Amino acid sequence: MEIERFPLLRVTEQGRNETEDIVTKESPLTIILNNRELVTLLCSPTNLKYLAIGFLFSEGLLRSKDEIKKIIADDRRGVVQVETRKNKEFTGELISKPLIASSGGRKASFYSASDIQDEAKVESQITIAPHEVFALVNEFQHRSRLFKATGGVHSAALCDTGGILVFSEDIGRHNAIDKVFGECILTDILMDDRVIITSGRVSSDILLKVAKGKIPILISKSAPTNLGVRLADDLGITLIGFVRGKGMNIYTNSWRVITQKHE
Amino acid sequence: MEIERFPLLRVTEQGRNETEDIVTKESPLTIILNNRELVTLLCSPTNLKYLAIGFLFSEGLLRSKDEIKKIIADDRRGVVQVETRKNKEFTGELISKPLIASSGGRKASFYSASDIQDEAKVESQITIAPHEVFALVNEFQHRSRLFKATGGVHSAALCDTGGILVFSEDIGRHNAIDKVFGECILTDILMDDRVIITSGRVSSDILLKVAKGKIPILISKSAPTNLGVRLADDLGITLIGFVRGKGMNIYTNSWRVITQKHE
Repeated sequence: MEIERFPLLRVTEQGRNETEDIVTKESPLTIILNNRELVTLLCSPTNLKYLAIGFLFSEGLLRSKDEIKKIIADDRRGVVQVETRKNKEFTGELISKPLIASSGGRKASFYSASDIQDEAKVESQITIAPHEVFALVNEFQHRSRLFKATGGVHSAALCDTGGILVFSEDIGRHNAIDKVFGECILTDILMDDRVIITSGRVSSDILLKVAKGKIPILISKSAPTNLGVRLADDLGITLIGFVRGKGMNIYTNSWRVITQKHE
Repeated sequence: MEIERFPLLRVTEQGRNETEDIVTKESPLTIILNNRELVTLLCSPTNLKYLAIGFLFSEGLLRSKDEIKKIIADDRRGVVQVETRKNKEFTGELISKPLIASSGGRKASFYSASDIQDEAKVESQITIAPHEVFALVNEFQHRSRLFKATGGVHSAALCDTGGILVFSEDIGRHNAIDKVFGECILTDILMDDRVIITSGRVSSDILLKVAKGKIPILISKSAPTNLGVRLADDLGITLIGFVRGKGMNIYTNSWRVITQKHE
C-alpha cells in the first residue's frame, strides 16, 4: 500500500471533530551500484526497481538495458542493487560536489553551459496538435489517483500523441520521471519521438533529464523557470506549460505544435 | 530582478497568438565554507546570504550567529563564502553519502530512527487559536507576490500568533525555509515559540528542518507524507495541514490549538 491512515482533528468554523486522513507514504530507497552505496532517495515506495534504473540513467551512469547484468530489488528493506556488465569507472566523483536542484534531485553530472553542450540536441521531427495536448493532459489527470486521494504526490507519463504509454506517481517530481524512464528501459519502450507530461514545475534539472531521454516534447500543467525555458530552447525541446482548461503556453520550439484553422 | 520575460505562443480554442510571459528566475548558488566548496544549490537569486546561512544551520554545520567570523556574498556570481570562528571539523563526510529528499534538499546529516533521537523534542508551550491560523495563512497568501506573477515558486514565513515576522520565496520549498532561518539568525529573530508556514508538501526532511529551528507549530496549505506525520508526532511539533478556506487538519500535538466554544 502506498498510503497510511492517521487520526486527526478536523477544525472548521462549525467546530472540531476527530476523524482520519489518508496520507501518502514516504520511504527511503538506497541504490547500490556495483557493490557500492550510491545514494539514498526519499520516495513513494512503489516501483523501486524502475526508480533505481531511471535514476542511474538520468545521472548518466547507465545508458541501456544491455549494460545491466543483474538487478536485485528488496522492496521491503528499500534497497535496489544493480550490477553492470562493465564495472564502470565509478570513482565517487559523482557525489563529491553535489548540486542540489531547485526542489529536488541532485544534478552532479552536468550543469554549466559547457556541460550542456555535451548533451546532444533532440532532433525528433514529431508534431502534435493542440487537441492532442488537451486530451493527453485530461487522461493524465484522470490517472492521478494517488494525488486525488492524498493531495501529496507528483505524476509523470510517457505518451505518444494518441495516449499514455507509461504512468508513474511519486512524492518527488524528479522520482516520478525517473520511474517512467526505468520502466521504459526495462520493458523496451522507446522514448524517442514521444511526449512526456509532468505535474510539477519545470526547472533546469527537469529539462536536462528529459534531454537525457531524448524526448522532444515536454508538457506541464505548471510554470517553467527561466533556465528551464532557456535549456528547452537550446536542447531542441518543445516546452508546453500551463496547460489548463483549454489553453496552453508554448515557450520553445513551437514548430512541433501544428495548429489548424478549425482549432 | 527575480523574473525574466519570454516570448511565447499562446494557443487556445479561439486560436493562437504571440505574447509574452513572466517567468521566475532560477540560478546556482555555491556555498563555500571555510575555503572549501560545500554545495551548489539551484535557487531563486534573492537573499543568497540568508539562504547560505540557513542551509548551513539546517545541515547542522552552524548553530548561531556567534560562530560566524565572516560572510562574503557575491550575488552576481552566485557565491557565498562563510568563515566560522572555529574551523569546524568538516571532513566531507557530510557529502559522501547523499540522501536526496522527496523532492528537494539533501539530508545527509540524520535520518534513521536513531538519528532522530539526537534531535531534542520541541518543548514550547505556545498555543494558537484557529482564527489566528486562518489569519496567518490569509496574510501568507497575500504576500506571495512572486507566485502570483509566475506560478513557479514556494513561500515560507516565520510568524508569531499575531502575524508574519519573516517571509521568503524560492523555487525550492526547502530553500524558502532556509532563507527564513538565515534571516532569523543574522537579524537576531528568535525562532522558539514561533509558527512556520510553508506553501509546500510536508515530507520528513521538512519536519527535520523545523525541528532544527525548534519551531513548535508548522502550518501548510498542502498535504503531509506519513513520515512527516510520524516525525511531527515524535518531535513534539504541532502539524497543521490542508489549511484551505475555513478548515484545517491537525495531525499531531493538537493540544497547542485551543478552540473556544464560539469558534
